[in-house]
Amino acid sequence: MRPVYLDNNATTRVDPEVVAAMLPFFTDQFGNASSSHAFGSEVAGAVRQARKSLQALLGAAFDHEIVFTSGGTESDNTAILSALETQEGRDEIVTTAVEHPAILTLVEYLRDKRGVTVHLIGVDAAGRLDVDAYKRALGPRTAIASVMWANNETGTLNLIPELAKLAHDAGALFHTDAVQAVGKIAIDLRSAGVDMLSLSGHKLHGPKGIGALYVKKGTPFAPLVRGGPQERRRRGGTENVPAIIGLGKAAELATKHLADEQGRVRALRDRLEQGIVQGVGHCAVLGDPEQRLPNTANIAFQHLEGEPIVMRLNQAGIAASLGSACASGSMEPSHVLRAMNVPPELLRGAVRFSLSRDTTGDDITRVLTVLPDIVGRLRETSPAWLQHHPSNAADALRPTELT
Amino acid sequence: MRPVYLDNNATTRVDPEVVAAMLPFFTDQFGNASSSHAFGSEVAGAVRQARKSLQALLGAAFDHEIVFTSGGTESDNTAILSALETQEGRDEIVTTAVEHPAILTLVEYLRDKRGVTVHLIGVDAAGRLDVDAYKRALGPRTAIASVMWANNETGTLNLIPELAKLAHDAGALFHTDAVQAVGKIAIDLRSAGVDMLSLSGHKLHGPKGIGALYVKKGTPFAPLVRGGPQERRRRGGTENVPAIIGLGKAAELATKHLADEQGRVRALRDRLEQGIVQGVGHCAVLGDPEQRLPNTANIAFQHLEGEPIVMRLNQAGIAASLGSACASGSMEPSHVLRAMNVPPELLRGAVRFSLSRDTTGDDITRVLTVLPDIVGRLRETSPAWLQHHPSNAADALRPTELT
Ligand SMILES: Cc1ncc(COP(=O)(O)O)c(C=O)c1O
Ligand SMILES: Cc1ncc(COP(=O)(O)O)c(C=O)c1O
Repeated sequence: MRPVYLDNNATTRVDPEVVAAMLPFFTDQFGNASSSHAFGSEVAGAVRQARKSLQALLGAAFDHEIVFTSGGTESDNTAILSALETQEGRDEIVTTAVEHPAILTLVEYLRDKRGVTVHLIGVDAAGRLDVDAYKRALGPRTAIASVMWANNETGTLNLIPELAKLAHDAGALFHTDAVQAVGKIAIDLRSAGVDMLSLSGHKLHGPKGIGALYVKKGTPFAPLVRGGPQERRRRGGTENVPAIIGLGKAAELATKHLADEQGRVRALRDRLEQGIVQGVGHCAVLGDPEQRLPNTANIAFQHLEGEPIVMRLNQAGIAASLGSACASGSMEPSHVLRAMNVPPELLRGAVRFSLSRDTTGDDITRVLTVLPDIVGRLRETSPAWLQHHPSNAADALRPTELT
Repeated sequence: MRPVYLDNNATTRVDPEVVAAMLPFFTDQFGNASSSHAFGSEVAGAVRQARKSLQALLGAAFDHEIVFTSGGTESDNTAILSALETQEGRDEIVTTAVEHPAILTLVEYLRDKRGVTVHLIGVDAAGRLDVDAYKRALGPRTAIASVMWANNETGTLNLIPELAKLAHDAGALFHTDAVQAVGKIAIDLRSAGVDMLSLSGHKLHGPKGIGALYVKKGTPFAPLVRGGPQERRRRGGTENVPAIIGLGKAAELATKHLADEQGRVRALRDRLEQGIVQGVGHCAVLGDPEQRLPNTANIAFQHLEGEPIVMRLNQAGIAASLGSACASGSMEPSHVLRAMNVPPELLRGAVRFSLSRDTTGDDITRVLTVLPDIVGRLRETSPAWLQHHPSNAADALRPTELT
């Protein structure tokens, strides 16, 4: 049986068209894009084209606003450190408690080791930013405000243009980690008003190890990786040509598929959520019910642990994840769900299903077929569950009212 | 006619076996190596294997001494910045005037913007490090000494174990940029005594966009790219699985071919040099005649510019380069050749031919067939040449005594 892959927020399958576009650049047009001979110049033209495809997907005004990096994490790190370096007299960072570790690990380090003041703005129970607290944190010392476009665990979306404007009102730069948003929802940088934006190829059916940082024309900038004059001196290192070409093709495909796929994927996701809520019961859909990525379902099962659910789904050939992939291996409940004050009986029971344009109706049916049984059996042996449903252990196997 | 590619120090063709090894990891085993489900764990095993292949090529004591990065530039930057951060009370850098921009651009920035004292040790006419000056520069303030194993422009090799020992005697860390050495000459980290070593996949028939930093067990370390817990928290970001697998395969192939290919390539390179010196004349082979990479020939033509030579070779289907690829586009003579005090009549006339295991005897014959004519015609229109050979312009087309 074909395995069911519902962990697309961790990484996506590279589109076969992307692989086909990359292939010639390994063994045939393998030149260094910075070389002056024929091997180099052919390649430089293809890189230019890829940059334009990404520009189109983002609605950026200029193709040179795209700086290719090694991925989302490097892009995020670059944006924050660049702002601290270029915004003279400003040494504070405003960001959120629910950012990805690519932001949080860095800002915690900056706070602990370099004395930078970091404001981590909280969220409400749906993962929505506390905009008042955000406003209050912004000030004449703010070098940069960084707020993710879409949360990787819940899919909750932020109102980026509004948040960018508030940052600018305080004279600060604004960055958004759009790693989970790009390719899933429409982005238009001409109207978003952001100064910098991060994306990562492997989240949109492109290759791993390639990403981009959008840097709006005129934004002061300091590189993180310094070397040769590549990327207009904004990122040293031999251009990762095949991956750049792959990201360009992935951007092209995302642009093409976005309108159709957004609705189709959302319908599948909604069917999955409703099916679980009705067929399994005693669970809650986390995140903003409205302002949410169309592909993400984060469902918390009362009085259960997410880990064995994910394990048993895996044994049944279904890949889903416990919070974000980055937290795997750790037994701590996700920092995102803690920031949302998810109630204790749900906190450890969250499972993330993330869809993509590869997802089919059959995939959803498979989950809805096996999950009630998996959850039912786990309830039978869960002390916490049994404590709350002592009268009738058989209850465990019976779906009940929605919660 | 098959083009002749003699710019392997800029980048190499990815070995078809490497591409074959990578391919399944794009569309089939495309999981996130950090995910706990089957898609992830299969991939994690393959990454482990690749790390071991690289360990074997380098003769490293432990596989976890290998940290995968996005390439040589990131590795170099990481090593230098890590040392400055972890070597308390030590804020000076000792390096050489002939390093790659991946080191030089960074240390110049650190000097100009962060007040770090940087000692740029000079070289002699063959590109050999001034070891006495190196010794004198080392001291109780030295955080790190960084000396490249092999120079990318001339191929000149440094005596790394000796230089590492001197750095350690001063209590400093020692790093070597071995981007041009790995895969071309035998490296044995068990005896080299280096604390950190940089390498880059695309210089050894592996993919672009992947590299590694070897960090000897016990070496204090601070990451450059901070995010998730990947690479034992030494380099955040989703693992670039296909490229890691590709680098592993490239390392395996390099280990296998090294003994045979080193001699074969050296013989081809020597034939090329002798053929040019005898067939074209009025030129000099730059770099250390003995301690030199077997694949690199840097030949300077008296009273000529390298640029039109490279252009015409290109028109004849031969890719060679003017100094390093990174400097292309700039009209400045190479910083390496200037540091070597190459005489003015040779300084602008240097052309680098760099071979690899893809290079054939026919490739060399092609160069030796077309180059005399190319150089001869350029001499006919070179005022500098004609000024020095006024008596007989026809001299231009005739090879003369070696220089
Ligand atoms: C929101 C978000 N930001 C940043 C990243 C980091 O991207 P990458 O792992 O490609 O470096 C990820 C994914 O891991 C993410 O989901
Ligand atoms: C000696 C040396 N160091 C570092 C680098 C940088 O490697 P990369 O371009 O893969 O980042 C190169 C090649 O460009 C090099 O030749």
